[in-house]
Amino acid sequence: MVKRYLDMITLRDTLDLIKKSFDFQPSSEKVGLEKAVGRISAKAVFSKYSVPMIHLSAMDGIAVRSEDTQGASQSNPVKIKDYKRVNTGNVIPPGYDSVIMIEDTWEDKDCFIIRKSSHPWQHIRPVGEDIGESEMIIPKYHLIRPNDIGALASYGVTEIEAISLSAGIIPTGSELVPFGEEIKPGRVIESNTLMAGAILESAGVAYKRYPIVIDEPDLIREQVKKGISENDFLLISAGSSAGTKDHTASIIAELGEVLVHGVAIKPGKPVIIGKIDGKPVIGLPGYPLASYTIMREIVCPVLEMFGFKVPYKHKITAEISNSLQSPIGTDEFVLMSVGRVDDRYVAVPQSRGAGVQMSAVRSNAFMKIPGDMEGISAGNQVEATLSVTPEQAEEAFLIIGSHDPCLDFLADIASAKGVDVHSNHVGSMGGIMALKKNNCHVAPVHLLADNGEYNIPYIRKFLNGKEIYLLCVAEREQGIVSETGISFDEIKDHTYINRQRGSGTRMLLDYLLKEKGISYSEIKGYEREVTTHLDVALAVRNGEAECGMCIYSAAKTLGLKFEPVIKERYELAFSKEMLKDPRMDAITECINSQEFKNSLLKLGGYDTKNTGEIRKA
Amino acid sequence: MVKRYLDMITLRDTLDLIKKSFDFQPSSEKVGLEKAVGRISAKAVFSKYSVPMIHLSAMDGIAVRSEDTQGASQSNPVKIKDYKRVNTGNVIPPGYDSVIMIEDTWEDKDCFIIRKSSHPWQHIRPVGEDIGESEMIIPKYHLIRPNDIGALASYGVTEIEAISLSAGIIPTGSELVPFGEEIKPGRVIESNTLMAGAILESAGVAYKRYPIVIDEPDLIREQVKKGISENDFLLISAGSSAGTKDHTASIIAELGEVLVHGVAIKPGKPVIIGKIDGKPVIGLPGYPLASYTIMREIVCPVLEMFGFKVPYKHKITAEISNSLQSPIGTDEFVLMSVGRVDDRYVAVPQSRGAGVQMSAVRSNAFMKIPGDMEGISAGNQVEATLSVTPEQAEEAFLIIGSHDPCLDFLADIASAKGVDVHSNHVGSMGGIMALKKNNCHVAPVHLLADNGEYNIPYIRKFLNGKEIYLLCVAEREQGIVSETGISFDEIKDHTYINRQRGSGTRMLLDYLLKEKGISYSEIKGYEREVTTHLDVALAVRNGEAECGMCIYSAAKTLGLKFEPVIKERYELAFSKEMLKDPRMDAITECINSQEFKNSLLKLGGYDTKNTGEIRKA
Repeated sequence: MVKRYLDMITLRDTLDLIKKSFDFQPSSEKVGLEKAVGRISAKAVFSKYSVPMIHLSAMDGIAVRSEDTQGASQSNPVKIKDYKRVNTGNVIPPGYDSVIMIEDTWEDKDCFIIRKSSHPWQHIRPVGEDIGESEMIIPKYHLIRPNDIGALASYGVTEIEAISLSAGIIPTGSELVPFGEEIKPGRVIESNTLMAGAILESAGVAYKRYPIVIDEPDLIREQVKKGISENDFLLISAGSSAGTKDHTASIIAELGEVLVHGVAIKPGKPVIIGKIDGKPVIGLPGYPLASYTIMREIVCPVLEMFGFKVPYKHKITAEISNSLQSPIGTDEFVLMSVGRVDDRYVAVPQSRGAGVQMSAVRSNAFMKIPGDMEGISAGNQVEATLSVTPEQAEEAFLIIGSHDPCLDFLADIASAKGVDVHSNHVGSMGGIMALKKNNCHVAPVHLLADNGEYNIPYIRKFLNGKEIYLLCVAEREQGIVSETGISFDEIKDHTYINRQRGSGTRMLLDYLLKEKGISYSEIKGYEREVTTHLDVALAVRNGEAECGMCIYSAAKTLGLKFEPVIKERYELAFSKEMLKDPRMDAITECINSQEFKNSLLKLGGYDTKNTGEIRKA
Repeated sequence: MVKRYLDMITLRDTLDLIKKSFDFQPSSEKVGLEKAVGRISAKAVFSKYSVPMIHLSAMDGIAVRSEDTQGASQSNPVKIKDYKRVNTGNVIPPGYDSVIMIEDTWEDKDCFIIRKSSHPWQHIRPVGEDIGESEMIIPKYHLIRPNDIGALASYGVTEIEAISLSAGIIPTGSELVPFGEEIKPGRVIESNTLMAGAILESAGVAYKRYPIVIDEPDLIREQVKKGISENDFLLISAGSSAGTKDHTASIIAELGEVLVHGVAIKPGKPVIIGKIDGKPVIGLPGYPLASYTIMREIVCPVLEMFGFKVPYKHKITAEISNSLQSPIGTDEFVLMSVGRVDDRYVAVPQSRGAGVQMSAVRSNAFMKIPGDMEGISAGNQVEATLSVTPEQAEEAFLIIGSHDPCLDFLADIASAKGVDVHSNHVGSMGGIMALKKNNCHVAPVHLLADNGEYNIPYIRKFLNGKEIYLLCVAEREQGIVSETGISFDEIKDHTYINRQRGSGTRMLLDYLLKEKGISYSEIKGYEREVTTHLDVALAVRNGEAECGMCIYSAAKTLGLKFEPVIKERYELAFSKEMLKDPRMDAITECINSQEFKNSLLKLGGYDTKNTGEIRKA
């Protein structure tokens, strides 16, 4: 029976159903020790013999009969004539039962003199000291580490039986361009199976990527038949929605059984769980972030059921910076940047746009908003799962505030110093508010006050009582971007693309309009907001608007004309506590570096004479 | 100038000196995205174009001109004749600026009727929504994850420039047998370079293992010259001590410079740090645990200086179960089993014997006793670094107490249930004391009281006030092992191998000797103690003693004769709190399993009629 797309079941029920529906016996294969790190043993490995196999000397010295040494003391030196010279690791010759260290002996003509008796088994590594014949070295389902390899090799093991699984991945979709070919507007590079393959590989599962199949049921059916015959586990990428071109579910139903079509999970709702020839088949959704979510939340648990160790397991508790709404009845997964600010982790949600794949790159963690919650309020504790190691999460440096393209270059230079910059563009005022709640390490700001001064008046007003410092990134030129060279005075004669409320650039526009007595309604396009300088320039280049306000570098990058309006001070605001944070030291060093200044000069429109200057607000 | 072996410097000074002595510029190489997971970017990757490249529909619906929809409402339906049908992901045809979802329209003959106006850019994914042309995708020194692969591929990236380093590893030593060949008594399988290679590989460093070179200076010199010419970094395994056959230091001095010979670190003291042709050369000590320690504590930091991400970084705080002495002036590294007992981690130190390589397999963590400390007292907090993932450490199940070979089989069966058994053999009384301090999950015991009852009298006496339960593993036969069939009454006529004080087997011997009026001094070999049943049987088979007391299975495994003495109840003691621990559930399930009972029957000498029985002490 095919369960329909709209009869969605919960993620937990889906996993329970999967657990009951298959017997999860992985295959196994012999793997040479040189290749065994990261593999999982399929059965216990026992030692075939004792190590050492024979008594060995643990010291450089002489092997003696302990009975010959009895009574030796400082006042009663004893001459030992029956001995054998041994070095560390040498076999103890038969008949001897004790080793005296060479430094405790005095060599005489034909003998050694000792001044202390030696007890039996002294300085001898007896047979089986390390491991005894028949003892277990590693159990089954043991993840092999480099230190295990060394020991196994020492004990004469040359290969292990490791669990294995072969997975096939079939990409489907007529809109897809194969990876490696030139992208064309309106077409999509087939990237999901690359991501899926990389996750399988991280877990130690071998995979085969099949060629792209266009949306033709007959072709898909043939490929699925082939995929299932050649593998233990099959992933079919895309075609899982309920649309007319989505054939995956009906083909699985034809060749086997659809267990689930549609899970109450976001993103990833249209996932299909099927069974063909007793093997699990998973239909992945087409949207990259949905596909990534299903790989993490369903495919990884399936691999665990087979006995593999999977990534995405380490959880931390964090304080969420923003409130999030979420549909009731659906487990929603939200990508986030987490970083340690003072003594707790802060989690900053990334864009939830289904098409914003950069969220997966920018984030270092994710969280689940469970189906029984309508959302989460800012400041609450949440459980975040890391997509990096715990140590990398400690390197995260949270920047929340105004956008500037130079933050990319700052992130690049900082990365070499072990600082992982996470920038969130919410405008200058958003930055000030994040700093107020202690939700970021630094807030980039460029806020012009009525007295003509930058930043400090706003900080004093909104962060009253906090000791705040400002690190100057640069002075930069703001102006009007256009194809034709429109000046500020001409903007009301043209369509305009605006920045979001709370951004310094928007506040500058409003300030200037007020000064010049122009009302907002005179600006055509005033309502449409984008969030970065580059977005403004892109909108102009694409003809969505004739002009907008942005910094010079954004206009230059896209080859557009620029009419300067003002030079403004772009600074990073931070609290006193950060002065002793090593991540802040690294960032300050980066901003002062010639490499960073050179990148500003290359971007254009920056004056670096105050770059690196720190002032108290 | 060659610094001599005995002028030892601290580990910290060694690392500082290394940092100053090289410029650590890794090479880089192009890596196809399919192979890029786990690699580190050598430079930032920027997006060559915007994604989407062109405005796309975010919904299935109709593309319209928003101005045509103005004024539409429930009471004022508007007919739209100028439209284009679009599906999700389709390019928005030129001239249209808004998308209306198909479910919000009513199709009529040649038009669609709408009842709500549509604003510009509604349901359109504008150019650059995901990423804008020129924006950074990843910075340099970024560790590539599967989610990064997907995004990079989507943005048309097919390969990245990744940092790379080629390392050479030269094994030296005339006593070595190549990995893969049959081991012979008194010779050593060359396993250190396998372990070292596996660590390099875990960090993403390519390595080449050279053939074994015997202890001949000319041959070693030639191989070192070749190794340094073919690689960026060279490891020379063994030959680093100050002994006569240890040529590594003088050859490095001849071809370049020895920076350090001898570091105040244990194990691993004889390490050599050298420089040839400006490249780092490290002489690893020969003992496997020393070599492993130097790989972790010196080679991994060197790889980090080159920009690689290395294992062995995650630290936890644990309470140490035993006091440890340590030499002042030397940083000593101790391998440990850590596990969460109640709400804190307990760390149980493993054998520090230089030749006990199993310590590296049995442990899941290690700690440093710093040079300025003479040791650490039981119950103190220590910082432990994990050699497994944090999640695997949570699976650790600490068994401290009496030894039985069946614990290996229990560990094997439990591993399949996600429980990682760590057994420490300290005898029954040691187990009771560990339970008293809450340092283990269960304590295996077999203690015969004067009233003939097993275990409960001891628990009542020593764990008074604690609610303790006992899970029966089996009843097992204890007896006298020998080559010739010696019975208990004959042991005083033969040499004997004893068990350690506090073990149940030792207590049984003492009890029986007392009962029979035999004094300890009548037993030849009473002083020599070993810690497991198998060690007793091994000593007998190797002729170290003629008899000893052990369980039947140990005698059987080694093909020895066995004269039964008593049948005893071998049980796991645990506190009430463990009754609700899922790891305890799994262990109970394993003991009750047919698989476990079968392994007892195969071992021999066990009666399983009470196996799995739980009683309250």
